[in-house]
Amino acid sequence: MNTPKQDGFSMPAEFEPHHGTVMIFPERPGSWGKDPSAAQQAFSQIAARLSQCEQVYMLAGDQTAAIAAEMLPEAVKLLHIPTDDSWARDVAPTFVRNAAGDIRGISWQFNAWGGDFDGLYPDYAQDDAAAEAICTALNVPCYNARPFVLEGGAIHCDGEGTVLVTEVCLLSGGRNPQLTKEQITAKLLEYLGAEKVIWIPFGIYNDETNEHIDNICAFTAPGEVVLAWCDDPDDPQYAMSRADYDILSSETDAHGRKLKITKLPVPHKPVCVTEAECNDYIFAEGEDTREPGERLAASYVNFYFGNDCVLVPQFGGAYAEDDAKACEILHGCCPGREIVPIPARVILLGGGNIHCITQQIPAARRL
Amino acid sequence: MNTPKQDGFSMPAEFEPHHGTVMIFPERPGSWGKDPSAAQQAFSQIAARLSQCEQVYMLAGDQTAAIAAEMLPEAVKLLHIPTDDSWARDVAPTFVRNAAGDIRGISWQFNAWGGDFDGLYPDYAQDDAAAEAICTALNVPCYNARPFVLEGGAIHCDGEGTVLVTEVCLLSGGRNPQLTKEQITAKLLEYLGAEKVIWIPFGIYNDETNEHIDNICAFTAPGEVVLAWCDDPDDPQYAMSRADYDILSSETDAHGRKLKITKLPVPHKPVCVTEAECNDYIFAEGEDTREPGERLAASYVNFYFGNDCVLVPQFGGAYAEDDAKACEILHGCCPGREIVPIPARVILLGGGNIHCITQQIPAARRL
Repeated sequence: MNTPKQDGFSMPAEFEPHHGTVMIFPERPGSWGKDPSAAQQAFSQIAARLSQCEQVYMLAGDQTAAIAAEMLPEAVKLLHIPTDDSWARDVAPTFVRNAAGDIRGISWQFNAWGGDFDGLYPDYAQDDAAAEAICTALNVPCYNARPFVLEGGAIHCDGEGTVLVTEVCLLSGGRNPQLTKEQITAKLLEYLGAEKVIWIPFGIYNDETNEHIDNICAFTAPGEVVLAWCDDPDDPQYAMSRADYDILSSETDAHGRKLKITKLPVPHKPVCVTEAECNDYIFAEGEDTREPGERLAASYVNFYFGNDCVLVPQFGGAYAEDDAKACEILHGCCPGREIVPIPARVILLGGGNIHCITQQIPAARRL
Repeated sequence: MNTPKQDGFSMPAEFEPHHGTVMIFPERPGSWGKDPSAAQQAFSQIAARLSQCEQVYMLAGDQTAAIAAEMLPEAVKLLHIPTDDSWARDVAPTFVRNAAGDIRGISWQFNAWGGDFDGLYPDYAQDDAAAEAICTALNVPCYNARPFVLEGGAIHCDGEGTVLVTEVCLLSGGRNPQLTKEQITAKLLEYLGAEKVIWIPFGIYNDETNEHIDNICAFTAPGEVVLAWCDDPDDPQYAMSRADYDILSSETDAHGRKLKITKLPVPHKPVCVTEAECNDYIFAEGEDTREPGERLAASYVNFYFGNDCVLVPQFGGAYAEDDAKACEILHGCCPGREIVPIPARVILLGGGNIHCITQQIPAARRL
């Protein structure tokens, strides 16, 4: 089979028009606790808002389909596809589109963010099969990029030939350690139909995805990015974000443009898991666990574009001012879209945020 | 996961109303020759006729999707699902339905009619995955019956609790040799939601499926079957059909009814592959081959019910009278349906017939 680039396909930016969004109804007790209903409520709120402007597809397993059908608006289409957890960004296909407006999916190899090396759970066969199943459900052809290991959250595209990634993730020993940085670059360009990869060094401190790009830096328009920021020199994020800024400000995109960088501050103090929250998880054998007091990778960069809105994570309580500030900054970066604050601590407790649980399907002529 | 029977699901009869039919566009050179266009034409004719009375879903791989789109009526829905060959009866799901009218699929384990024991080709991973992919495409839940090995052509149901199978196939060393006949019976009843299995000894002579039921005997109504018949005592089929007749005439169905048996004669002399036809195959390594003069398993029992019709295989040439007689007999057995003769030598050359390349999807409330 050809690569997407050979066939004239490339990945549109998330801020371009969507046909819809893929999500997965949550249930895993090691992510969502003994009673997943709070997480299910948060996911449902997101699905309901996105349903107002695009088609939402919600995957559900045999155990959760009935609950999902009850909690979700009728406009949400339930898909009977089993998964191991609920990270649609990372297990759903990356979609590419050609000039005629046809879309196709890409199935990367998925190994739960690191496989035997430092993966987060040991049984991920259903997750690994999900991208192809979603393509089948949508009836679009699927490129099989195996054995190349990648997750959707590890890449951002501007839709005009530029890809953003972090070195710490893409060069991790749990991804493709047999490939050089140059070989990984070539693979990304071939599959995403792109011309240039910008490698920034770091993601968000203690991000268990090996610091996915989608928690640290995102395109809001061609040539424009937001970067998670920290002004406290005693916080490890301080130096990490600065190192990223240095690269971004010295780089140009595939069109030779300098990037406009908007700083999007992380919460002013660490968001940590409480003892009560910790006791609520039920971890499976071999699953990565959490300790009371552990710092979570809270960042407002993990927002998501709907067709007419931006869904922005909110951490609440002591972070109310940070929350408001993030909404204000994103309002400035994303003109013409409604800024929708979404209470998201429960999603953060699962290990990610709004962007991690959504995957856009670009507008296409046959969907 | 429960079994279908535990959930209140059972397999409707093929003659009950359909939502539609699954087929697979042919291309394998070991079945359809160097130039598959004759087979593609025959499949398209069947799809076109069925499209007049139900929804046809045609699976196509990356290589054939464009040709299929060109040859088929627009009403046929193309599904992007790769397979190893074109036997929808055997690799598509067996569908079951509950009292509310919901349907679900069953994915049996598929091993190309015998696996290492006496399978027909060695690489069948895509075929084995097809049933689940089709369920995903139709968005219906799928029961996984693995490791139980079965094909759709190995069973017939009357929709009222009775299952028909052949001993030579179901007890073959290439299916489930670790299970006793009683255990196999129990498995069939659980998955098909049935009450009784009638085991007849034989299928059609030289049938490479280990003599599937669907080439020798089929229900045309509850309590009524047609049986492939042969009146030439020098033909091995003679004794085989008689042995089947003896069992069928002594048995009762799940409701205690005696069966009405209609004899449906096979062609009056063997249908054999010619040298020219033989030279046209391109066999892959490890694939079962054909020899010039080899007898093909020609039978009119391999017809298929559409919602308003019966598609009847026709062998043409020297078999014109046999063809006409078969149509006449089936007309008598299937009142109210149009009898549609289909030139089918090219399908027979591939190793099966119309029933082998179709799988019905029962009428359902949500499709």
